[in-house]
Amino acid sequence: MIIDGCPAGLPLSVEDLLVDLDRRKPGQSRLVTQRQESDTPEILSGVFEGRTTGTSLAILIRNEDQRSRDYSNIKDKYRPGHADYTYDAKYGFRDYRGGGRSSARETVARVAAGVVAKKVIADAFGGTVVGYVKQVGSIVAQVGEPEAVTLAQVETFPDGSPNIVRCPDVPRAQEMIELIDRVRKDQDSIGGVSEIVASHVPAGLGEPVFDKLKADLAKALFSLPAVVGVEYGSGFASALQRGSEHNDEFFARENPSGGARDIRTRSNRHGGMLGGISSGMPIVVRAAIKPTSSLSREQRTVTDAGEETTIVTKGRHDPCLLPRFVPIGEAMMAIVLADHYLRLRGQRRA
Amino acid sequence: MIIDGCPAGLPLSVEDLLVDLDRRKPGQSRLVTQRQESDTPEILSGVFEGRTTGTSLAILIRNEDQRSRDYSNIKDKYRPGHADYTYDAKYGFRDYRGGGRSSARETVARVAAGVVAKKVIADAFGGTVVGYVKQVGSIVAQVGEPEAVTLAQVETFPDGSPNIVRCPDVPRAQEMIELIDRVRKDQDSIGGVSEIVASHVPAGLGEPVFDKLKADLAKALFSLPAVVGVEYGSGFASALQRGSEHNDEFFARENPSGGARDIRTRSNRHGGMLGGISSGMPIVVRAAIKPTSSLSREQRTVTDAGEETTIVTKGRHDPCLLPRFVPIGEAMMAIVLADHYLRLRGQRRA
Amino acid sequence: MIIDGCPAGLPLSVEDLLVDLDRRKPGQSRLVTQRQESDTPEILSGVFEGRTTGTSLAILIRNEDQRSRDYSNIKDKYRPGHADYTYDAKYGFRDYRGGGRSSARETVARVAAGVVAKKVIADAFGGTVVGYVKQVGSIVAQVGEPEAVTLAQVETFPDGSPNIVRCPDVPRAQEMIELIDRVRKDQDSIGGVSEIVASHVPAGLGEPVFDKLKADLAKALFSLPAVVGVEYGSGFASALQRGSEHNDEFFARENPSGGARDIRTRSNRHGGMLGGISSGMPIVVRAAIKPTSSLSREQRTVTDAGEETTIVTKGRHDPCLLPRFVPIGEAMMAIVLADHYLRLRGQRRA
Amino acid sequence: MIIDGCPAGLPLSVEDLLVDLDRRKPGQSRLVTQRQESDTPEILSGVFEGRTTGTSLAILIRNEDQRSRDYSNIKDKYRPGHADYTYDAKYGFRDYRGGGRSSARETVARVAAGVVAKKVIADAFGGTVVGYVKQVGSIVAQVGEPEAVTLAQVETFPDGSPNIVRCPDVPRAQEMIELIDRVRKDQDSIGGVSEIVASHVPAGLGEPVFDKLKADLAKALFSLPAVVGVEYGSGFASALQRGSEHNDEFFARENPSGGARDIRTRSNRHGGMLGGISSGMPIVVRAAIKPTSSLSREQRTVTDAGEETTIVTKGRHDPCLLPRFVPIGEAMMAIVLADHYLRLRGQRRA
Repeated sequence: MIIDGCPAGLPLSVEDLLVDLDRRKPGQSRLVTQRQESDTPEILSGVFEGRTTGTSLAILIRNEDQRSRDYSNIKDKYRPGHADYTYDAKYGFRDYRGGGRSSARETVARVAAGVVAKKVIADAFGGTVVGYVKQVGSIVAQVGEPEAVTLAQVETFPDGSPNIVRCPDVPRAQEMIELIDRVRKDQDSIGGVSEIVASHVPAGLGEPVFDKLKADLAKALFSLPAVVGVEYGSGFASALQRGSEHNDEFFARENPSGGARDIRTRSNRHGGMLGGISSGMPIVVRAAIKPTSSLSREQRTVTDAGEETTIVTKGRHDPCLLPRFVPIGEAMMAIVLADHYLRLRGQRRA
Repeated sequence: MIIDGCPAGLPLSVEDLLVDLDRRKPGQSRLVTQRQESDTPEILSGVFEGRTTGTSLAILIRNEDQRSRDYSNIKDKYRPGHADYTYDAKYGFRDYRGGGRSSARETVARVAAGVVAKKVIADAFGGTVVGYVKQVGSIVAQVGEPEAVTLAQVETFPDGSPNIVRCPDVPRAQEMIELIDRVRKDQDSIGGVSEIVASHVPAGLGEPVFDKLKADLAKALFSLPAVVGVEYGSGFASALQRGSEHNDEFFARENPSGGARDIRTRSNRHGGMLGGISSGMPIVVRAAIKPTSSLSREQRTVTDAGEETTIVTKGRHDPCLLPRFVPIGEAMMAIVLADHYLRLRGQRRA
Repeated sequence: MIIDGCPAGLPLSVEDLLVDLDRRKPGQSRLVTQRQESDTPEILSGVFEGRTTGTSLAILIRNEDQRSRDYSNIKDKYRPGHADYTYDAKYGFRDYRGGGRSSARETVARVAAGVVAKKVIADAFGGTVVGYVKQVGSIVAQVGEPEAVTLAQVETFPDGSPNIVRCPDVPRAQEMIELIDRVRKDQDSIGGVSEIVASHVPAGLGEPVFDKLKADLAKALFSLPAVVGVEYGSGFASALQRGSEHNDEFFARENPSGGARDIRTRSNRHGGMLGGISSGMPIVVRAAIKPTSSLSREQRTVTDAGEETTIVTKGRHDPCLLPRFVPIGEAMMAIVLADHYLRLRGQRRA
Repeated sequence: MIIDGCPAGLPLSVEDLLVDLDRRKPGQSRLVTQRQESDTPEILSGVFEGRTTGTSLAILIRNEDQRSRDYSNIKDKYRPGHADYTYDAKYGFRDYRGGGRSSARETVARVAAGVVAKKVIADAFGGTVVGYVKQVGSIVAQVGEPEAVTLAQVETFPDGSPNIVRCPDVPRAQEMIELIDRVRKDQDSIGGVSEIVASHVPAGLGEPVFDKLKADLAKALFSLPAVVGVEYGSGFASALQRGSEHNDEFFARENPSGGARDIRTRSNRHGGMLGGISSGMPIVVRAAIKPTSSLSREQRTVTDAGEETTIVTKGRHDPCLLPRFVPIGEAMMAIVLADHYLRLRGQRRA
């Protein structure tokens, strides 16, 4: 993972990186893949005496649990839902070990980058990003004000046990866990929706035309494996609404930090972005995640020669991608916000 | 509008541009804004003797219906749902005439660029892009195979009259038209969903990590005004599905054009992209469009000084953005496909 | 000409643009081409009430002196030194009228952009850019301290008459004018060197590896027609030097504006950049310009069918490109400095 | 080192990389730094079963000879000619160990990338890149036709001994070696010029305006440490020439490979690029390299507090950068040619 353009002087250590890397790590609970990776990052460059130098920041995380197993049963078959066929079509051949470049293993680097981005936005404007699981199958969490959800709620149940599904609505979280357990036993998988919220983001982030903040956030999330939909604010439900219902009313409030009066909206159906530019309200984005494509049950497919066959993707799959998606989605949002903040700061006259 | 990197030798004329510009044009029916713009493009550079030269293609389309009206009633007020406040916050002031750069007027240039992109993909691989209105309010069109919808169905009713809502499901189209008429009379607006389909796209378009085809398509669509959600294939409905239901089964068919056997999927829940790379199946993307923010009815808001006020955005608004969105969404999809095709062709060894 | 990312709130008018456009304009003296262009810019977008809005700034300058003359004598011949052949090879055909996109006519847009960039750097850090002619043929100007040369010296002789060659060394300027006159009468052309100096540039501009300031300045200058060499500081003469002669010694001086002590170098063989990053010393760059390729005398060449022929490029050519190059070179330097300053401001923590 | 967009299917091994890495390696002769680095690359991704996969190619080369020596004598001093001061000014502090990011150590990654690029251009169009030392101090090599110089001549003397200065003019090479030896004993350094030649490059590479081939080549070379000047073809000598002397005459020759007649120029003062686009003639570029800034003799400077002091940069410096520059310059040229070829192939209709 290489980051260019990171501000100099930010404290950064391997321990900082581990916080989110551990949230993404395989094997963290029974709900996720049981593959074992220590995910220990090595900072190769860009940090000196514990602070970022402003020059290229390179971090290396090695794969450790690459089993030298026999791939002969899948190397010439196209796994349904995977990129096997499209890589063959694009490149003429493929690295069939674990999906090669299309493996979601690459998201580990994004989470490391996300830690740096979270530091940038915290340092620059006190920004925070918190994600959680909003839906698994037909179970939909009720979360009240999205911006009120805390990392602690996402990670830990009120009784102190780990919230292994990362849903802050405790009863729904229990239902989700049961559902994922059931799906796993069925050798099946299940999809869901994650909601990601950025708070304390100043108004003004995002470019006016192509690089709207909503556009870059969507690209960042869609660049992740298994993301099949993205919406913000009211999203697809807006299709059902009339303008008179949808528009959020502006009002002015006394600035809690004591400065000039603050312009806010009474509701946040606009999800924190107007004209593609942050409004100062919480940014609320949702990503739809398809069910894991790898299944331990038999599926019909073809070989690369076009012959009919069946495939069983043995191995250690996540029955539901959502719990591990949360830190990955947070990372992508933090990266986009950090980038846009630096752009804004550059363009703005002192 | 400037395009760099367009292949040389493609026929291009003002008449070619008008085909889609006229589909986007204001005043085309009672369902859309009654503003009058001729939208006549002038090709400034990049075409010589009727063909593209391969160098920068510049096209100019002037605004003609800028009424020199009095903006004093809105220049210091923040229109709900618009970018007035966010532009003020970003830039320190704004061009209040018609929304300035945040005006959807800019999409006229995208449609012109889309015509060029459609030529590129038709020339390169026989690709086509057809969009239509899938949903207005709660009225959802049934369209069978998305790739079977024709431009003629989108533009014209079976009786030869213009399909002013651009929905190929005729009974639903009639309902949508009635709904939009009703909303317009209520001085209100309504949202909806557009579906855009690209056919005959070869497998292999899209980069493996950040510039996945799905990511660039999503960015392109989210860069448009009023788009609040994007999904492809099963999209958000995937959240409800199990992997065993969701995965599309591969099969091989005789190639209709006579070459080697063709790998296809029996269903297309994956929306034509696997691992972010085109699979050769139709690419099916949907965009959720919020209801028009400008309303002729009174709304509460504040001035830029934070004082409470009300606003009535008089003028000529689209009561529903969907009918005019169709050619704009098509343009963005064609542009992304053209870009990715050139990238693929560049990287692929001869 | 389109600029993205220009800071909002800078005053900008057509008159501002004309200052440098007039310095580049054809027909300004007997030393340059006698083609007639009014070079009147139209600001299409990005300025509101006399100030930049921060959104895309578009400026249009039309060609007016395109004579509808007969090109039949050159349309199938490759003019020596021109891009006729390479465009044919690249694109399969070319716009033979006046060189098409390869015409130096496009530099008019760069000069307009340069005016904006000069405003950005003047506003941000009081930066100035002044260029002049350093050499024509074997006549080399003596200029003492490059940073001491003023725009007035470049534009006007001590007696108030226009310095039509733009060389601040008055005796050499007279010699250059005589040489160019002679060359013109010989139906020939002559090369030269221009020196461009940026003053009051803060230390810190430029990225550490690929986007070094020297690299981007060189690219910007080499992107201009006829530039065949670029050097900064001692440049090619450094090849002859020993490190003990070449290195510039650092010293600290009282800051003239009253702040902390200033680090400077006693000499400026490093041309204002160390490690590719500005040092706070004047940035001194030179560009070598080849003699104009178009000649009114007969030259041997081939047709696009490979047949031997001769060509006489009738018309109105600059016998020496240097006098008009000065504002173009200044523009490119200002653009690069403005870009790098915005990058620096973005990356730097407040 | 990460490369994106490399074509799939090219053979690539660690051994391939070593060929050029060994040409750049420290300690290869008495003319260069005696630092010891094995420069053993590890291919982290992008190669499968000996061939490039088309996805990101990552190569890691570790530093091994970082002596944990005492930097206290230089950590607060600004070494003349180095980036110490400019990094401090830009970032607020710096990694003082060996220059941090400004160390020419980073060029090892460029050479590895250059090996890949050389494979791309050899595979795509039989292109080759050969560089050599053209000048050290006032000793200038005579090389006849630049494109006739072979890698063997650059690397080995006629008697089979290594050409440690990489100059193909044998008598001048001997003089250069003697000069560098003398300079080294004087605890001084010396500058020079390297010439780099690309052969068999098809006409058509390079974009018409900003991304001219000459512009990207210049940027690539100027992005290297110590490069202070770049020219191509006649370069700065063009300033002295008249158009009638400078223009290269076109002619047509029978195509040696049997196809249509070939357009060539009789001379190559244009250095293989016209209008910024390759002409099919050899591309000939020269880079001026300043004398090494690190000197073992005492130099005057200041501390970061602005106090006067002296500095002796003990250590293992190259008395002349030229011999090791050759493979680095070749790498940058190959990278730019590979990039532009992929762009050309993408844009060109099949």
